[in-house]
Amino acid sequence: MLRKLCVRILTKRLALRNKEVAVRLVRLAVKSLSSYVGAMESLKNCTEEQQPPSLLTNSWSKKQEASKSQKPKSVGGFVLVHAGAGYHSESKAKEYKHVCKRACQRAVDQLKAGAHAVEAVTAALVELEDSPFTNAGMGSNLNLSGEIECDASIMDGKSLHFGSVGALSGIKNPVLVANHLLSEGQKGKLSAGRIPPCFLVGRGAHDWAVSQGIPTCLSEKMTTKFSLSAYKRNKRKMELAERMDTGHNQTKKRRQSSENENGSGCLDTVGAVVVDLEGNVAAAVSSGGLAMKHPGRVGQAAHYGCGCWAENACNMNPYSTAVSTSGCGEHLIRTMLARECSAAMQSEHAHQALLEAMQNKFISSPFLVNEDRVLGGVIVLRCCRCVDTQPSQNIQGLLVEFLWSHTTESMCVGYMSAQDSKAKTHISRLPPGTVPGQSLAIEGGVCRLMGVVE
Amino acid sequence: MLRKLCVRILTKRLALRNKEVAVRLVRLAVKSLSSYVGAMESLKNCTEEQQPPSLLTNSWSKKQEASKSQKPKSVGGFVLVHAGAGYHSESKAKEYKHVCKRACQRAVDQLKAGAHAVEAVTAALVELEDSPFTNAGMGSNLNLSGEIECDASIMDGKSLHFGSVGALSGIKNPVLVANHLLSEGQKGKLSAGRIPPCFLVGRGAHDWAVSQGIPTCLSEKMTTKFSLSAYKRNKRKMELAERMDTGHNQTKKRRQSSENENGSGCLDTVGAVVVDLEGNVAAAVSSGGLAMKHPGRVGQAAHYGCGCWAENACNMNPYSTAVSTSGCGEHLIRTMLARECSAAMQSEHAHQALLEAMQNKFISSPFLVNEDRVLGGVIVLRCCRCVDTQPSQNIQGLLVEFLWSHTTESMCVGYMSAQDSKAKTHISRLPPGTVPGQSLAIEGGVCRLMGVVE
Repeated sequence: MLRKLCVRILTKRLALRNKEVAVRLVRLAVKSLSSYVGAMESLKNCTEEQQPPSLLTNSWSKKQEASKSQKPKSVGGFVLVHAGAGYHSESKAKEYKHVCKRACQRAVDQLKAGAHAVEAVTAALVELEDSPFTNAGMGSNLNLSGEIECDASIMDGKSLHFGSVGALSGIKNPVLVANHLLSEGQKGKLSAGRIPPCFLVGRGAHDWAVSQGIPTCLSEKMTTKFSLSAYKRNKRKMELAERMDTGHNQTKKRRQSSENENGSGCLDTVGAVVVDLEGNVAAAVSSGGLAMKHPGRVGQAAHYGCGCWAENACNMNPYSTAVSTSGCGEHLIRTMLARECSAAMQSEHAHQALLEAMQNKFISSPFLVNEDRVLGGVIVLRCCRCVDTQPSQNIQGLLVEFLWSHTTESMCVGYMSAQDSKAKTHISRLPPGTVPGQSLAIEGGVCRLMGVVE
Repeated sequence: MLRKLCVRILTKRLALRNKEVAVRLVRLAVKSLSSYVGAMESLKNCTEEQQPPSLLTNSWSKKQEASKSQKPKSVGGFVLVHAGAGYHSESKAKEYKHVCKRACQRAVDQLKAGAHAVEAVTAALVELEDSPFTNAGMGSNLNLSGEIECDASIMDGKSLHFGSVGALSGIKNPVLVANHLLSEGQKGKLSAGRIPPCFLVGRGAHDWAVSQGIPTCLSEKMTTKFSLSAYKRNKRKMELAERMDTGHNQTKKRRQSSENENGSGCLDTVGAVVVDLEGNVAAAVSSGGLAMKHPGRVGQAAHYGCGCWAENACNMNPYSTAVSTSGCGEHLIRTMLARECSAAMQSEHAHQALLEAMQNKFISSPFLVNEDRVLGGVIVLRCCRCVDTQPSQNIQGLLVEFLWSHTTESMCVGYMSAQDSKAKTHISRLPPGTVPGQSLAIEGGVCRLMGVVE
């Protein structure tokens, strides 16, 4: 038996430290989940209601009806993916949604086969990296020298191990290297008591990947027509800007140039969060980095606590949480956004906590006071075992709350449980008239996974 | 007028999650600093008292007496450095102390010249890196391929900006590259709205350093007789261990080998924390990384929140704090020890908070449950403006509390205020019979910097 409840939250503008913060909150009828209803009610500032989008309603309501007549079965878990926070043009919306759909399916295939969350999240990332439309793996942004250098990381909520690669060239799927580093870390020390690395970069990371049998790929083959034309366009733009910047007072000019142009496009790092059959969570992220970055630049996708985070519930924490971020790496590093959002998810009301984290720990973070536009997005999943109304039937269940929030113009997400026939996808956009980097959108849903213990 | 109060804390064993944690706590008479006395009294488990070591008493008491007859002057600040947590042989103790002394002097020279904390901490690090005895810059550990790859980072508590380099070869002073990245980040965006990087690695980091005019140095020139012989010895040890590891059940063997050997030696990363005349704090760290590390491996010294942390006091935080870590990079990354210790320092009682942080967030961290020995050390500084007893004299003062703690066999530290004629140095060691990685030592002092406002 599977019950899902979707939530979109109301549109509301909040004044915050002189920055206009528009919060897009949409809401749907919530049945039988008192904790989430409580969370919704506590959002005092929300007064307007909107029709929920068809995306989040039709098939879900039908599923709820259908599921009532079915006997509960064991379920494999749930996956939420993102194809980046940035700008997703309407013309390419279909492609972004398709790749999110396929990534969800890959993760669910793993979950149905009994794989743990770490393997499922890796499978989702491989699919996202393989798409030429995302800024990860194939089709990654090119750096200043016209080369591809990727960052990726993965975290296992059960063992709390972490694997990460930075500025990695010539490997088709950087997430596989991160996954291997995580696995090797879990095996204990190397010969002569040496501690296995959790973070490898550059040439060393490439050579290690090769030694592990991970497929290589020529940089030229990973470059797409789109990434090459974007590189040429950016290079011209940069050269033009630099010609205008000649002369004295360089610092002032640097600040001025930042006001005129804002690289909110092409930030579309990818990521996923998963909870498996046993309630273990995992998170991963992968990125080609900012367009025209300096060679050797490593962004949040390789940085512990910044690109992804996963932590199973324990004595201290009632919820298992998993987070994956996207956006401007430097902003996400300096605010440690993945870990901050994970910590916030231990609060009673998930989306209120995420809203506050995005406002206070990101847009208005003391670490980014001089930034005019703070660009990023997160997907968040939290879950806990839920007490069923019919304990005599040996029913066990997981209550999964999932959310996404972004300050960029848009963010493309997809989600699916192992009992769904196909994934739902959605491109979330800031409300019209709001300013990227100073406003945020937040949306999400709730999914109750239930199965009979034989 | 300068008053300093030194504290060593009592020897005590605490049972903690099946791990024997020996805490070395030594105490000295504390005058006029009620907050620190309070902290000492709250450490309920301490019952034994020891004679304080001469190092921390004689000259300091004399200075206190002498300072009473002097009219207060403006002072430039305070520096605390470390030449690593690891193992410092008695035969080389003199060299380690000397380099700490010189590093303190370099920082104080900067402070006296009116430099800010960031410049002073950089000066200290350059001196520490230039020593062939430390595992940073000149004389760094060699990696598996016999090459030097350095990590370094720096954080400014005022702007909260951060600069970092990883797996950097061919640059004499990696901390200078980190410092330049920090400075460039503070200047705002680059041409065409590009965000300046805060973290560069490998070849890209090297090329950027060269473009900034930072001196290069051939890898062979940075290799010392000592680091080369250690490399050859480690290589033989590794080859022997790998021959013994052949056969099936590789995982089990890997764990067994880790029990027999523990690389607590050669972890001597260096670092420093500084508070300047205006009460700004800064922290930095630099490391050649673990001996025989895989090429491309990046340790905590390049990792945000893990190698160093500095945060000026603000509305939320009554204290300015600065932290620099040393030890096994992977342990320090996964526990984010620098940031954790910084957060702990906002508690009322500094050394009790550090003791608890080292126990609960490091030795017994849920992130390191499968590690038999957790190896690391920190130096910590916190300060706040203090209210003087004679406000009519326009006296302003800074109360600086400084501490070091380590789970390794030893840690070498030095400290100095701008009013001292020379630095104090000390090699802190775990009490005899205690087990490195399962026990800890904690020591520290208090320094009151006072000056008349003209």
